[in-house]
Amino acid sequence: MQNIHDYVRQTAAAAKQAFYDMGAAATAQKNAALLRMAELIKQNSSAIAAANAQDMEQAAAKGLEPALLDRLKLTESVVENMCEGLRQVAALPDPVGEMDEFRLRPNGLQIGKMRVPLGVIGMIYESRPNVTIDAAALCLKSGNACVLRGGSEAFHSNMAIAGLITQALRENSLPAAAVSLIENTSRESVGVMLQSADLIDVIIPRGGKSLVERISAEARVPVIKHLDGICHVYIDRAADAQKALDIAFNAKTSRYGTCNTMETLLVHESRAAEILPPLAAKYAAKGVELRGCARTRAILPDIQTASSKDWDTEYLAPILAVKVVESLSEAIVHINTHGSGHTDSIVTESYTDAQTFLRTVDSASVMVNASTRFADGFEYGLGAEIGISTDKIHVRGPVGLHGLTSQKWVVLGNGQTRE
Amino acid sequence: MQNIHDYVRQTAAAAKQAFYDMGAAATAQKNAALLRMAELIKQNSSAIAAANAQDMEQAAAKGLEPALLDRLKLTESVVENMCEGLRQVAALPDPVGEMDEFRLRPNGLQIGKMRVPLGVIGMIYESRPNVTIDAAALCLKSGNACVLRGGSEAFHSNMAIAGLITQALRENSLPAAAVSLIENTSRESVGVMLQSADLIDVIIPRGGKSLVERISAEARVPVIKHLDGICHVYIDRAADAQKALDIAFNAKTSRYGTCNTMETLLVHESRAAEILPPLAAKYAAKGVELRGCARTRAILPDIQTASSKDWDTEYLAPILAVKVVESLSEAIVHINTHGSGHTDSIVTESYTDAQTFLRTVDSASVMVNASTRFADGFEYGLGAEIGISTDKIHVRGPVGLHGLTSQKWVVLGNGQTRE
Repeated sequence: MQNIHDYVRQTAAAAKQAFYDMGAAATAQKNAALLRMAELIKQNSSAIAAANAQDMEQAAAKGLEPALLDRLKLTESVVENMCEGLRQVAALPDPVGEMDEFRLRPNGLQIGKMRVPLGVIGMIYESRPNVTIDAAALCLKSGNACVLRGGSEAFHSNMAIAGLITQALRENSLPAAAVSLIENTSRESVGVMLQSADLIDVIIPRGGKSLVERISAEARVPVIKHLDGICHVYIDRAADAQKALDIAFNAKTSRYGTCNTMETLLVHESRAAEILPPLAAKYAAKGVELRGCARTRAILPDIQTASSKDWDTEYLAPILAVKVVESLSEAIVHINTHGSGHTDSIVTESYTDAQTFLRTVDSASVMVNASTRFADGFEYGLGAEIGISTDKIHVRGPVGLHGLTSQKWVVLGNGQTRE
Repeated sequence: MQNIHDYVRQTAAAAKQAFYDMGAAATAQKNAALLRMAELIKQNSSAIAAANAQDMEQAAAKGLEPALLDRLKLTESVVENMCEGLRQVAALPDPVGEMDEFRLRPNGLQIGKMRVPLGVIGMIYESRPNVTIDAAALCLKSGNACVLRGGSEAFHSNMAIAGLITQALRENSLPAAAVSLIENTSRESVGVMLQSADLIDVIIPRGGKSLVERISAEARVPVIKHLDGICHVYIDRAADAQKALDIAFNAKTSRYGTCNTMETLLVHESRAAEILPPLAAKYAAKGVELRGCARTRAILPDIQTASSKDWDTEYLAPILAVKVVESLSEAIVHINTHGSGHTDSIVTESYTDAQTFLRTVDSASVMVNASTRFADGFEYGLGAEIGISTDKIHVRGPVGLHGLTSQKWVVLGNGQTRE
């Protein structure tokens, strides 16, 4: 076998060429390929299941944790969701080539913008083989080529799925290299991708925090990433008590392991004595452990004391840090200092407090009177999402088709020259 | 003096705090500060001139090249332009807080986007002290704080200007650290900025290619950069001959040292014999050296032969590479292979050829029947520009106020929770 460096570089170069070749692809052609992928996956579900069983067996033999095994498993419903996802992406409007913001300049030039793909997207991910199809679908629809580097534990599943993607592309006269799976799952293959800024336009890592941190630290290619989800709900002095109870309970308990789950609850001092006891009872019934500041513990004496580390922790578990604050501005400072810029919500009936919170909380999603759990691409109406960005440039929050595109300038003249 | 690492980190941390404090700044307050800066610079022009004379003297003693000395010099007209630039930025609409793209979701949530500053912008630049005021103005107006690291050769000029900026901020109750000049011009201070991703949200380098390359290679902070400007004009089979002559001449000769100057001319084979001789005569009269491919030299036998290196060279000089191509698609492949993704223009009367060029040339600006020289923020109506990005993510082409902002999601609910 050729060396890993050359193999990855050649794969990325082929993807780059496929990206240019796709410049001429019609929307109907891309949609037909997506729908064909759904058909092929359905038809070949037993072959996919067999490949997945092989991965599961090896993973179990290696002693992979149950949570990881769970993510690796392609159940019937996961496969059906993959097909449904493909159909949904096919049904979304094609963003490529959209023009807007045109203005007429005094010299007669018409100057505006056209939405265009980014180019080649490098996806680096772990476990879940369904990411292979989700990423392929979103990249293809948005006119990008992609280089997919899945984890070793999902190798056979990813290969089986990638083979069907290639077939669907070929049958629809699209370049097979538009979706290229790196068939080498060594650490080195990731390293080569991260250094190939000439061939790969953006890297999107999906996986645990250590993977994402390593990729961010090493990449010479721009990265769109999600790190932590330390989300807050702030119960304002002007909160409606029932909305506060409902939202604070839902934001913590509807799922524990998701990045949009609340990890710290902030309560205005004027409402703490009224709201914390019934809320604590709801959490206790659900088995949620509370860790509070001194003022919280004055009201709820039986709970643990929060250490300073708690304000910076993404528990991903039935644990919640609780802090009583003196003012809206203390809440905002706390969120901007300890939050992860993901999603934060205020519960209030005050117009001015809501406006202040929306303007000054520096997070990808800011909410009024809604559960942080709504922060995802489907709930936002994007139709699909490839991740949730906690970065500040290019795209913030849920990343859908638009997040995989950029805008170039279009200048329409009739012979103008510059003096 | 404290060590450089701590000094730069503390300066950036103060800028971060100033960014949060500015969240509450009114547009009128920012505009008043900008107009006050213009006044102060006008009033203190002799002090600025004295500081600049000191820099010029030291630079001359060090034997700086005349071109660099020229950029360093703050003539009366450069200072007047700085003041005029401040007044223009004050007159631009404030992008911060603009909301759009709202949609009503089936559950009653109103979900849209709000335009927000990026945070702290690190500007690293050489020579031109007027960048200090341009950067400060654009960052302030867009609600960002900035950390400015100018070159050692402009130290006294930058200090004089920064002092007046600070005064104008203070007089208008804005945080002085919103515009922070790093008073240490060592290489180390740049290095600390490039590693401070926790304090600086984006780095914008302005200067020679080697500076920009070094910064891109070392930065752990996202970079918005301009590398090369290898711009093309393609004279299509369906070109109007007069427009072709005018545009090709203007794109090369109106200025040689700018990044939007044409460096390679592509001509469709069916028009080469007609257009190249009169065009070559115009270039010859202006002293432009031509370097052609074999087919160009068959028509213009007296010119130099272009080597393969010429297609990848930004001359920034009265030199032009010329290539005859067989087709529009050969022209597009050449541009996507050898261009720098800056600005490329087609001269054509063919609607379909124009559309194909606009869609498939992968550059920040794509033009029809216009000189590449129009690619800049003022010509595009942005009112001002902080640079021209040849990157593909976040912002492409001229970067104005909008390029220094991002969009966060705003979710307006009335108590919604997720099932």
